[in-house]
Amino acid sequence: MPIGKFITFEGGEGLGKTTNICFVRDYLQQRGFKVVSTREPGGTELAEKIRQLLLNPDAESFSDHTELLLMFAGRAQHIKHVIQPALAQGCWVLCDRFTDATYAYQGGGRGISLDNIAWLENLVQGALRPDVTLLFDAPVEIGMARVTQRGAGIDRFEAEKMSFFERVRHTYLTRARQNPHRFKIINAQQTLPEVQQTLVALLDALIAA
Amino acid sequence: MPIGKFITFEGGEGLGKTTNICFVRDYLQQRGFKVVSTREPGGTELAEKIRQLLLNPDAESFSDHTELLLMFAGRAQHIKHVIQPALAQGCWVLCDRFTDATYAYQGGGRGISLDNIAWLENLVQGALRPDVTLLFDAPVEIGMARVTQRGAGIDRFEAEKMSFFERVRHTYLTRARQNPHRFKIINAQQTLPEVQQTLVALLDALIAA
Repeated sequence: MPIGKFITFEGGEGLGKTTNICFVRDYLQQRGFKVVSTREPGGTELAEKIRQLLLNPDAESFSDHTELLLMFAGRAQHIKHVIQPALAQGCWVLCDRFTDATYAYQGGGRGISLDNIAWLENLVQGALRPDVTLLFDAPVEIGMARVTQRGAGIDRFEAEKMSFFERVRHTYLTRARQNPHRFKIINAQQTLPEVQQTLVALLDALIAA
Repeated sequence: MPIGKFITFEGGEGLGKTTNICFVRDYLQQRGFKVVSTREPGGTELAEKIRQLLLNPDAESFSDHTELLLMFAGRAQHIKHVIQPALAQGCWVLCDRFTDATYAYQGGGRGISLDNIAWLENLVQGALRPDVTLLFDAPVEIGMARVTQRGAGIDRFEAEKMSFFERVRHTYLTRARQNPHRFKIINAQQTLPEVQQTLVALLDALIAA
């Protein structure tokens, strides 16, 4: 049985992650692969309830550690019930945000020590890491403008200041530099056909590998 | 301004913790102390929502790490919004369960490494530890019989097997042995007046200290 691959989609809001997860899922399914498409925070019934707590813009002010630990609590559940079983069955798992988002948002954004995040990553994930991480990147104001244009309500993270998102982006790019074999940076300022051409090339290489 | 004391109430279900927290609160208030009486998991609006997730007997099967991290996520919130502000204002804080319960239930009960629990305790609490921990202790079958007699529904923890509660009790007693200055073991097989006589002696000594 072929072993599935674990692909995570990272980057700020409004940069096309969701659209392109659907594109990648369809592309892989058309080539006969079984695909599980999921997201964090969330991905199981309990983890989605944790997501609701995390994103609720009307919640009482969070302790930074509460936010961090809720992220990993949901992740542990998601890994146990969704990600590991799917990979074990040979599925490709596409995940909208994973632990790099915790480094970027809770580490870079909130200022939590990256060593503490790494400790929790080892506790909850053991040896599990993504095979490939697609980082959708663009200057912060571009993503923010797209989120504003959507017109939907904004969540607790989207309500943060520009400087927060600058730190998030900086941390993502630093992690990409530190893990060059795993990360693929996608220039989210390209047109959608251009982005998807890049994705097809990456996927074809991954399938052939 | 007098500095408040932090007293935690630990032990299995059905051994009189709740009744005796009310007794201690009244006793201290009658002597002019400001008292905050609270509980874990819970104690803030968000932490009570986390409690609901933790106790729900119909929830999907929990990863042990999810349970552990939800406990500390709520605790971080509780410390920030309730315990530390109250202590800083000179209140006595009475808390129905705290981190010793995590050692007993998630450590002893679920088998999570006590070193990992200690790491999270340091992350979330810094130097904060209870001044006194009252451990209500009795053979497991006594507490279980009282819980059954209550007739109310049982939560996700109360639904565990006898062997689980034996491990919980054993871990509590081990921690009491390891921290003899902080722990006071209350024999919960005594009559209520006997228990409360013991509590009064402990409180009077604590007030005089």
